[in-house]
Amino acid sequence: MYFYERFCQWLGHLKLSRVILLVSVILFVVPLFTHYYLSKYDETGTLSSNPMRHTLEALGDISTMNAADLKLRIEEMLRIKASVSTELRELEAKRGRLQREAAAASAKADSAKAEHARAAAELQRLRVSADQARIAQLEAIRRDSPELAPPLQILPSRPPPILPPIASSSEVHCRMFSCFDHSRCSLTSGFPVYLYDPDVFVPLAGAEVDGFLKTTLKQTLGYNTHITRDPNEACVYLVIVGEAFPFVKTPAPTTDTYKLLLNETAIKRLPYWGGDGRNHVLVNMARRELSVGSGDAFRGASIGRAMIAQSTFTHEQFRPGFDIVMPPALGPPGGDVWADCAPIAPARRKYLLSFQGSQPPPKGIDKDHDKSLIEALQQMVKSAPASDLFHLQFECDPPVEKRAVLPIGDWALCGTDRSRRAVLRDSTFALILAPADRNYVTTALLQARLYEALRSGAIPVILGGDRIRLPFDEVLDWRRATVSVPRARVPELHVLLRALGDADLLALRRHARVLWERYLSSVQAGVDALLASLRTRLLIPARPVSPTVGAPAFNDSYYPPRLEPPAVDAEPEETLGPLEAPYPSPAYRRNFSVALLHGYEMWNDWGEPFALYPQLPWDPVVTSEARFMGSAAGFRPVGAGAGGSGREFSEALGGDRPREQFTVVILTYERETVLAAALARLRGLPYLNKVVVVWNGPSSPSSVSSWPESGAPVAVVRAPRNSLNNRFLPYHLIDTEAVLCVDDDAHLRHDEIVFAFRVWREHRDRIVGFPGRYHAWDLNFNNGFLYNSNYSCELSMVLTGAAFVHRYYLWAYWRTLPAAIRDYVDEYMNCEDIAMNFLVSHITRKPPVKVTSRWTFRCPGCPVTLSADETHFHERHKCIQFFSQVMGYTPLLTTQYRADSVLFKTRIPHDKQKCFKFI
Amino acid sequence: MYFYERFCQWLGHLKLSRVILLVSVILFVVPLFTHYYLSKYDETGTLSSNPMRHTLEALGDISTMNAADLKLRIEEMLRIKASVSTELRELEAKRGRLQREAAAASAKADSAKAEHARAAAELQRLRVSADQARIAQLEAIRRDSPELAPPLQILPSRPPPILPPIASSSEVHCRMFSCFDHSRCSLTSGFPVYLYDPDVFVPLAGAEVDGFLKTTLKQTLGYNTHITRDPNEACVYLVIVGEAFPFVKTPAPTTDTYKLLLNETAIKRLPYWGGDGRNHVLVNMARRELSVGSGDAFRGASIGRAMIAQSTFTHEQFRPGFDIVMPPALGPPGGDVWADCAPIAPARRKYLLSFQGSQPPPKGIDKDHDKSLIEALQQMVKSAPASDLFHLQFECDPPVEKRAVLPIGDWALCGTDRSRRAVLRDSTFALILAPADRNYVTTALLQARLYEALRSGAIPVILGGDRIRLPFDEVLDWRRATVSVPRARVPELHVLLRALGDADLLALRRHARVLWERYLSSVQAGVDALLASLRTRLLIPARPVSPTVGAPAFNDSYYPPRLEPPAVDAEPEETLGPLEAPYPSPAYRRNFSVALLHGYEMWNDWGEPFALYPQLPWDPVVTSEARFMGSAAGFRPVGAGAGGSGREFSEALGGDRPREQFTVVILTYERETVLAAALARLRGLPYLNKVVVVWNGPSSPSSVSSWPESGAPVAVVRAPRNSLNNRFLPYHLIDTEAVLCVDDDAHLRHDEIVFAFRVWREHRDRIVGFPGRYHAWDLNFNNGFLYNSNYSCELSMVLTGAAFVHRYYLWAYWRTLPAAIRDYVDEYMNCEDIAMNFLVSHITRKPPVKVTSRWTFRCPGCPVTLSADETHFHERHKCIQFFSQVMGYTPLLTTQYRADSVLFKTRIPHDKQKCFKFI
Repeated sequence: MYFYERFCQWLGHLKLSRVILLVSVILFVVPLFTHYYLSKYDETGTLSSNPMRHTLEALGDISTMNAADLKLRIEEMLRIKASVSTELRELEAKRGRLQREAAAASAKADSAKAEHARAAAELQRLRVSADQARIAQLEAIRRDSPELAPPLQILPSRPPPILPPIASSSEVHCRMFSCFDHSRCSLTSGFPVYLYDPDVFVPLAGAEVDGFLKTTLKQTLGYNTHITRDPNEACVYLVIVGEAFPFVKTPAPTTDTYKLLLNETAIKRLPYWGGDGRNHVLVNMARRELSVGSGDAFRGASIGRAMIAQSTFTHEQFRPGFDIVMPPALGPPGGDVWADCAPIAPARRKYLLSFQGSQPPPKGIDKDHDKSLIEALQQMVKSAPASDLFHLQFECDPPVEKRAVLPIGDWALCGTDRSRRAVLRDSTFALILAPADRNYVTTALLQARLYEALRSGAIPVILGGDRIRLPFDEVLDWRRATVSVPRARVPELHVLLRALGDADLLALRRHARVLWERYLSSVQAGVDALLASLRTRLLIPARPVSPTVGAPAFNDSYYPPRLEPPAVDAEPEETLGPLEAPYPSPAYRRNFSVALLHGYEMWNDWGEPFALYPQLPWDPVVTSEARFMGSAAGFRPVGAGAGGSGREFSEALGGDRPREQFTVVILTYERETVLAAALARLRGLPYLNKVVVVWNGPSSPSSVSSWPESGAPVAVVRAPRNSLNNRFLPYHLIDTEAVLCVDDDAHLRHDEIVFAFRVWREHRDRIVGFPGRYHAWDLNFNNGFLYNSNYSCELSMVLTGAAFVHRYYLWAYWRTLPAAIRDYVDEYMNCEDIAMNFLVSHITRKPPVKVTSRWTFRCPGCPVTLSADETHFHERHKCIQFFSQVMGYTPLLTTQYRADSVLFKTRIPHDKQKCFKFI
Repeated sequence: MYFYERFCQWLGHLKLSRVILLVSVILFVVPLFTHYYLSKYDETGTLSSNPMRHTLEALGDISTMNAADLKLRIEEMLRIKASVSTELRELEAKRGRLQREAAAASAKADSAKAEHARAAAELQRLRVSADQARIAQLEAIRRDSPELAPPLQILPSRPPPILPPIASSSEVHCRMFSCFDHSRCSLTSGFPVYLYDPDVFVPLAGAEVDGFLKTTLKQTLGYNTHITRDPNEACVYLVIVGEAFPFVKTPAPTTDTYKLLLNETAIKRLPYWGGDGRNHVLVNMARRELSVGSGDAFRGASIGRAMIAQSTFTHEQFRPGFDIVMPPALGPPGGDVWADCAPIAPARRKYLLSFQGSQPPPKGIDKDHDKSLIEALQQMVKSAPASDLFHLQFECDPPVEKRAVLPIGDWALCGTDRSRRAVLRDSTFALILAPADRNYVTTALLQARLYEALRSGAIPVILGGDRIRLPFDEVLDWRRATVSVPRARVPELHVLLRALGDADLLALRRHARVLWERYLSSVQAGVDALLASLRTRLLIPARPVSPTVGAPAFNDSYYPPRLEPPAVDAEPEETLGPLEAPYPSPAYRRNFSVALLHGYEMWNDWGEPFALYPQLPWDPVVTSEARFMGSAAGFRPVGAGAGGSGREFSEALGGDRPREQFTVVILTYERETVLAAALARLRGLPYLNKVVVVWNGPSSPSSVSSWPESGAPVAVVRAPRNSLNNRFLPYHLIDTEAVLCVDDDAHLRHDEIVFAFRVWREHRDRIVGFPGRYHAWDLNFNNGFLYNSNYSCELSMVLTGAAFVHRYYLWAYWRTLPAAIRDYVDEYMNCEDIAMNFLVSHITRKPPVKVTSRWTFRCPGCPVTLSADETHFHERHKCIQFFSQVMGYTPLLTTQYRADSVLFKTRIPHDKQKCFKFI
């Protein structure tokens, strides 16, 4: 027990010191060993026994040590431990303090760095802006071409002087250079036209004018911008002559008596006749009872130097480049005509070719000529395959009254307008036969047939078309809407018609409808086209289109009071472009050249020869090298012409167009905070010319509210009524070609906007924007297209909640789009964006352009808008279907790509820069 | 000491067991503690003392244990240890075995998975392919329109029968319908034209034909595809009448004697005159001594039903739609004419307007008329600002010989061709005065002025233009190239000319040059245009353009022997489209509709009315809904019309065009291994119709070498000589509209190719491809553009080493591009890609389209190509400058975006799929 006690005593003494040492050693060794063990285990999964042996050896060493030494050392170590602990605590405190100090310092450094970056960016921008300003100044100095004054009207002030009448025989040689007085029609006159009041003057002319026509003409011409009430300043005088309708006037009508009862003396007594009828246009619009024919108003009459516009002309009578072939006035006075039309699809209808007519025996004309023609046509029907249906009727059933038809072998119309329309709507092609009398270049009956065929989408096939003139053929390209074949080619007709593919048929029919709608459909269309074609001939530009002057929103001012000081930007931004002073797009610089360079397209593609626009999406570019050889004004080439990416690119717009800016148009409905945020987001946006806010609410915006600085002028205009169409009103406040339409809750980054602007500059005639949508065929009901907003690889629409459009389309939306579409938008408070997509694709036959990966743009916290509504989609399906019905087809086209900046996601050498940081 | 010994003994006994225990415990506790300590330290940086206390307590427990027990336990433990060791070793061995087995199994599983994925993809493809095949079959069955036969020539077989001549008085009323015999000109006749050999027949006509003209005409007409040697099958007969040149024939020339010495009787004795000259065209090309005037060949002569083509016509004589205004034959016989032209830029030249001429006193015409005109012009000069320079000379210096000029108040040319050219090259506008005699609609002198003005890029300003006819005005839109003003507008002329901006001037000048080059410049151009305009009038399509039939590369076969079995694809690929049978693009489907729908553009924009193409980049689309209403044939809408992304998208081409495939054209120069790799890379590429290899080397490809399977037919054609131009030869082997030009060493992924193909389908008239380049202004020397291949944010070229182009442009490269450019390419063995970019931008006025982020495409290991050469860049700078010189301007246009697939880098919900995996 003694031994045991001593041992315990020893242990008691030993315990702490030895164990501490032992543990110290173990503490030193074991982590090593543990580490080794762990890593060893990791490596092989088996335990090596070596480390254990080492540990045992170490213990053996310790056990041989002196106890007293150990105690001393342990005490020493305890002291050291205590002092170290204190030291540690102090250090810890110090460390904490230093950490806090460091954090503070680092925060300071960060903010300084940010400040520096911002300052640098600002400096950069200012430098670029200064460069821009210097260039603009230089341009202003160097501009050798004086700023052309806006077109000033130069008008005559006296009525036409009286000149001796010309000989009847030289009337047939009248041309513009010999019979027209240009001195009354200065290039800048705006083409004033005086209309002799049909109630006052026409009875003088001896012919009776249909009451409907008289009223309609007076009314529709009132809408025409060229009509003046001052006969002294007029360039052209319009005389409505009325119809030649023989048996109304003559008591015993015979087929011989078709000479117009034009009272020549009365005509010559018209107050501004000037002795020879210079600059007078005698308009004879056929309308009444076309089924029995309507003649020529002027045969044999002497009309001096006056021009004739009517539907019937003989070869001798028609003076090319002087007289005008008019369509008959068969349509409504004006307004929408789509309801009368047939849809464009399908390409092939029931009958390949149809004709209904009866020909009274012509007098003194080769009768066999038409007989052999008819036989050839009947032969064609017989030899055709069963799949090709024809509907050719060369005798009317019931027969028409033939007595009043001109004895020229003209083909009278059968049945009623309704019965003819039923056949035409079922016909791919409609046959039109030139009158047997070869002297006629056009007759009212033939024009009526053309009118009806075009209206119903039956492509006119004019047999004998090589001697026929179609309406306004001076400016219209009828080849794109009709098939004109010499009579000699009858045997080849079937082959020719069958050789046209579906795409061609649809293109012909579509174009036919465009021409018909714009120039023939209504009395107004016909008269407007008459005046516009005359004006085109005289080289006089159209009247400028008028912008919408909206009501100012703040006590007679468009500009809100500026209350809030501009906030400092939180973050330094990417330099996206110079900060410039507002620079409006040059306007009305091509007043004369549009008709030269785009005369054809204006009439045939855009369908808009009626007004002069400040700019067009189709203006030509200055060629590449000319920009460095005298035509540099306005151009901002990238890297001064050397090109480049990164900074050089961000500093200059480059491209093939001169510098320009854009206008942001925001439609808002009494959401002032949302609007304020939208305006704040625009701050610092390069190339921003102005923000136009269309205020759709019934109450004024509160002028005391905070309108944040947006870096560009903000104009607020009050809409007359709450309508989504207001988004596209061509407000006079818009000074640029580029218009960025945005919803008030659309969140777009500046780089996205600038990139879209650059892309739009290349595709000025298209909608360029962010949210892509498409029209999908309704596979369940197979009766039209549905609206679809899913993620998709094919697009056909870009919503105007965030898209660039050309200012031209704001006018086109109101002038070219049928009113029914705008009314529908108002009725359902929806689909104005779909309407705009329909319009642009209809005019250009191009799809929109989607830019960048951004697909949605709504702000997350914003109140729920219309779009979230459950009925929204249903309405939008209906919109597509209704709009297609109105336009006769779905003009939308698809695209399978989107536009990104050239170096987006491209690996480039590190010393090169991208075009944008994030896109 | 005893104690010490016992203790040691005890220790001896104790050491192992106790220490083992102790260490065991420590081993258990210390890692815990270490872990705790480490983690604690990490957390706070200070050491907690608690763990140490726990360890000490544990040691205390052990020290109280019984020694014998301990020994037993130790022995037991040793046994256990041994057995455990054995067990461990066994386990280790087992584990190793299992691991190996697992690895093998996992490898098997992976390969099985890959196999499955590949099989699934293949299945998917097969399914899609089967669907495609089923649709194609259905389409074939349902096709109600019989396959139209390729245009078969229907020709007459007898000469024109002899008919009684018509009265001289009715000649003036000749029109196509009354005087032309269509029966000789079937729509499918190809418009055969018979030329009376001028050496044999013209002397009969009594007029002497200039020797140069005679030779030239015979030669150039030989190149015309319409000329036939068989008079029996001809539609039209050409008679070269020669010039009216009075004082050559009449011994005493007076100004009165300008009647052509046309021997009427001789003309009527022409073998195919048929009594009345039906279908004869009497061509009188003015050439000799225009400075003294050249007259009208036919005044007073009776020419029956023949048409006249010349430069001089009176109002009474010219039969609109029947006779043709020809340009005078002033140019070379044919070939390149660019060297005679002036550059288009700068827009404004030294003189605003120039005129040099002298007017012999006209006979019996109002002399004051022109006097007042000249006074007005001089007044304009006086009142103009100093910055506007005029060069108007109304008397020649030295005076010209006036005796031979027609006494009609025509303006004779002053000086020499060289002196006039010097002035015109310095003139923005060139004044052209209509002759004082109003009866003339055109004169040879006026046409000569027009010719010279156009050639030198002076925009013609025709005073009295409202009574003047310009060449081929039936088909050409001269409004886009000239300014035509009535004489009455002289006072407004200056305003009008100043109102045209730089872009308009450049556009007018550019268009003027296009019209001049294509239709007026050389004798060949004039004669070709004459025949083409006649043909257009008759509705007859042009002759089909002829493809290049290259030499087959393998013993009379284009197709290489197939030696290597198709290798198995290493990885399952993305499904990019169905595997289809080769499907050529439908050809010659629009033979008749092209002239209808594109008659205007064909003549005025594309400058190519001379040939019929199998397809055009501008063919119209079938409208959206028509595709679901009867015109579905060929269309492959995405999701059957419902749209979509992912699988739906990859399975169908979609878009607005029917299905189609593309041809890969690879130009190679004896690099068989590189080529073989290129072919192998194409394996499995959807929509690939055929690979056409243009073998540029002098030796045949070795037929024994391995030609890998590329999944589509590979045709190899041997080029006649080593030329880069061969890349663009329109080989007959190409059956599709889309042509993918690739270098043999170009590495493109399949998804990239398919995406580019889809984008090209929307921009068929542009170059769509990968490597973007641009032209940068040489800022150092300021004398032209440099080629630049740097990464840039603006592009103006896409290299044809990896780009889609329309097959049409392969023809255009040889037919529209001046030969000088192709020669230059041959000379420097470089720049064919730049030439193609110039060509396409010139025709379309659009920039190319760059797709995806891929910028370079060369394979890393391939041998160094031309491009790496140091001189390469220098040559390419020179190319741009030379091509610009030849074309008169740099047609390149810039673009600032590229096309990516719609959902590229877009965050979409995880249940949705993208369009492509990687792009």
